[in-house]
Amino acid sequence: MGTGILCRMSTATWTSSGHLLGLEGLTREQFHSILDDAESFLPAVQGITDMGDVLSGRVVANLFLENSTRTRVSFSVAARRLGADVVDLLGSTSSASKGESLVDTATNIAAMGVDGLVVRCSESGGAALIAEHVNIPVLNAGDGRHEHPTQGLLDLLTMTRHLDRRDLDDVTVAIVGDIASSRVARSNIHSLTTCGANVLLVGPESLVPTEFESMVSPGPGSGTVRISHDLDAVLDQIDIIMMLRVQYERHDGEGMPDDYRERFGLDVQRADRLGPGVPVLHPGPINRGFELAHEVADGERSLILEQVANGVAVRMAALAGLLG
Amino acid sequence: MGTGILCRMSTATWTSSGHLLGLEGLTREQFHSILDDAESFLPAVQGITDMGDVLSGRVVANLFLENSTRTRVSFSVAARRLGADVVDLLGSTSSASKGESLVDTATNIAAMGVDGLVVRCSESGGAALIAEHVNIPVLNAGDGRHEHPTQGLLDLLTMTRHLDRRDLDDVTVAIVGDIASSRVARSNIHSLTTCGANVLLVGPESLVPTEFESMVSPGPGSGTVRISHDLDAVLDQIDIIMMLRVQYERHDGEGMPDDYRERFGLDVQRADRLGPGVPVLHPGPINRGFELAHEVADGERSLILEQVANGVAVRMAALAGLLG
Amino acid sequence: MGTGILCRMSTATWTSSGHLLGLEGLTREQFHSILDDAESFLPAVQGITDMGDVLSGRVVANLFLENSTRTRVSFSVAARRLGADVVDLLGSTSSASKGESLVDTATNIAAMGVDGLVVRCSESGGAALIAEHVNIPVLNAGDGRHEHPTQGLLDLLTMTRHLDRRDLDDVTVAIVGDIASSRVARSNIHSLTTCGANVLLVGPESLVPTEFESMVSPGPGSGTVRISHDLDAVLDQIDIIMMLRVQYERHDGEGMPDDYRERFGLDVQRADRLGPGVPVLHPGPINRGFELAHEVADGERSLILEQVANGVAVRMAALAGLLG
Repeated sequence: MGTGILCRMSTATWTSSGHLLGLEGLTREQFHSILDDAESFLPAVQGITDMGDVLSGRVVANLFLENSTRTRVSFSVAARRLGADVVDLLGSTSSASKGESLVDTATNIAAMGVDGLVVRCSESGGAALIAEHVNIPVLNAGDGRHEHPTQGLLDLLTMTRHLDRRDLDDVTVAIVGDIASSRVARSNIHSLTTCGANVLLVGPESLVPTEFESMVSPGPGSGTVRISHDLDAVLDQIDIIMMLRVQYERHDGEGMPDDYRERFGLDVQRADRLGPGVPVLHPGPINRGFELAHEVADGERSLILEQVANGVAVRMAALAGLLG
Repeated sequence: MGTGILCRMSTATWTSSGHLLGLEGLTREQFHSILDDAESFLPAVQGITDMGDVLSGRVVANLFLENSTRTRVSFSVAARRLGADVVDLLGSTSSASKGESLVDTATNIAAMGVDGLVVRCSESGGAALIAEHVNIPVLNAGDGRHEHPTQGLLDLLTMTRHLDRRDLDDVTVAIVGDIASSRVARSNIHSLTTCGANVLLVGPESLVPTEFESMVSPGPGSGTVRISHDLDAVLDQIDIIMMLRVQYERHDGEGMPDDYRERFGLDVQRADRLGPGVPVLHPGPINRGFELAHEVADGERSLILEQVANGVAVRMAALAGLLG
Repeated sequence: MGTGILCRMSTATWTSSGHLLGLEGLTREQFHSILDDAESFLPAVQGITDMGDVLSGRVVANLFLENSTRTRVSFSVAARRLGADVVDLLGSTSSASKGESLVDTATNIAAMGVDGLVVRCSESGGAALIAEHVNIPVLNAGDGRHEHPTQGLLDLLTMTRHLDRRDLDDVTVAIVGDIASSRVARSNIHSLTTCGANVLLVGPESLVPTEFESMVSPGPGSGTVRISHDLDAVLDQIDIIMMLRVQYERHDGEGMPDDYRERFGLDVQRADRLGPGVPVLHPGPINRGFELAHEVADGERSLILEQVANGVAVRMAALAGLLG
């Protein structure tokens, strides 16, 4: 178990700030290092190796003030595979429901001596705000519309593993859906363009603001960001397609055109018009039959379950790198 | 600790399908083997022996999409006594509340690398449906009106231990209540008749459909299934009585006669008319003073807390047998 | 690790009843012993020492039928730092929501073989009622308006550590707020007067009943209990001030005067009129800007985060002493 090596490798990457708050500003080299690191945890996800000593005796607190299943469980499984214990604070049962501020809840949990804080909250920038007030590592598990960095990393890991290369130069990645309110899209734009991909944001005018074209990473060799409001018109340009979940629960259909599904849903006919071997990603949970057809979600193009497995590896790497 | 022996013994029983989905179709010999197995875990439930190495490093996911306390906690305690970690996904905080399908939730959790899935859901057949889609053991913790196999096994263990014999030939077991919507009744009918018991289903016409008489196990030596709508008329025929919980929350009183309590509640007077030593079981939680009087629930006939302790042993046996 | 010594020390203190139900009736010597014991766990809270062997293999059940974050998480962190596993039963997902009685829920969980029960409930005396029915240690984590003993102990630890002495003779401690409905106030009155402090209960007439003056501890050397309805008039008499949370959720403003904040809130101006170095405590969660100003909560006088850390130490001591 090259745990010592992992931790040394990750030190450089993870501990510039001591937290994992977002992907904006990371360099291509940092992404390479993270991907190498995350990949080394995949055997433990698959049950081939036992890494239960890495964080033995540590306690990780999941502070999830927004509803979530898979991200919380993924972090929990990751922590436990490393030997750490987990305490859950879920929104519906937390002091936040008594009107306590996000920072007060976080500083209190930190004062209890937990070793790390995984935060999901509805405030954009909430994770960074907490990080300013506690002296333990904070891992952003999604903060409002801001970022969802472990999702961005698992998507990057999934794409690069699929292509069997570390960089995405000249690869066109389409992200389809409600870009405006998507932290997943924001994190992906940072990581993908930094690694050279050309990102194509696809959705109705109301959900894809033109200012996103300026979100391109400033680093050398960065890819581009373009916008399209016509999925059919760009299908043949796409090398990788990521369908976003329609967030019914977030904006009550605001800005969502009545013909969204017809124009932007990836049904069987549309998927057939993608190039051969073009893979489909989705951060889940899927609205089957809406943004993604059953047959496509479960079909040969789908990398969705690879994303899930890779997510545990990425979170193991982040926890080990920041708390190890 | 004959753990090796336990696992070999249980292998034959548990792993015919690799899951524990229901009791229908198990043979009398298989029930014997399960009871032997479960009994060997009782000292660990009582804190006499330490079995914390059996599933050390494993992670069990509780996917409980229906409200439950005791079954979930019983599985959790069982897993932890075996050294496994547990992650909880409860209905109210799960992606299912975002409209995700049962199978999608389950395949996602499985893709995270957990080692087993304990499922409670409202869909009859939901556990089997999940088992078709994942490659890890699925333990049915109650699926709609279908089955609740660990409850059936703990009831069988409790009865056979009480009688100090493995079989129930010529023993009349009454199950009283809302049979139609009871997965507990269904699982018990399979196990009890297979082990030779004559099952007497007691309740109002609206809640005890006549087709239940044909549910008798097809094996040699199986007991019978009879129906009665008059508890008082059959009290003197009963060797063991199991009172079901009135499931207010499930059918809003539909089919529940206004005089249910007067006709089918086990009050002190009725309990006094049972034969000497006839034990009373109840799967809990009890509606005290409704289907079961306080004095009876806490009296000498009551095996209710034995059921609870035996439940942990049964679940330890199932987890060790399927995940070991 | 003087664990053996700790447990022997604590035996005398903790196991007179085998439970921790309240602070009423404990002697000054018992409080000394508890404080010594709790202090010895502080290095483990701070991550300096590892006490993960003390309760290894034990399972603690958190039976929290009332909403709580910090107390539940504090007990969970304490248990895990001692190597114990934790199962949570929260009100919203418990059988209690199916109408089961508190005692039935508790006896069932105990029958599963858990090693200790941490109870939060809305019934005053609920923890003691449970303790009569189970044969495992019960730790009261707040029962209605009755007591919240670990909160009282952590407050006592915080005050005595701040003053660097074990007793509070001639120290005036003000408790400000809704005394009538506060279990925190009740537990503090018992411990503080026993250790010699003079307690000053401050709040509006409607929330500070005169009968509280007779709650003074009967032991030799006990302090006094006085009541004031005018915070400004007593500010210069106070050596330590504890602000209570205004429990909006408990009495819907009943008895709460419209000018509560103006008369009893600890704003910056009022805090400036306290003596130099007079510390401020609050059990949390804080209604910032209502009973306590932001600047005071985060200022030099505040011992609030010390309270939180000390709370984990107190709960480790209680769990180790009762379950060890």
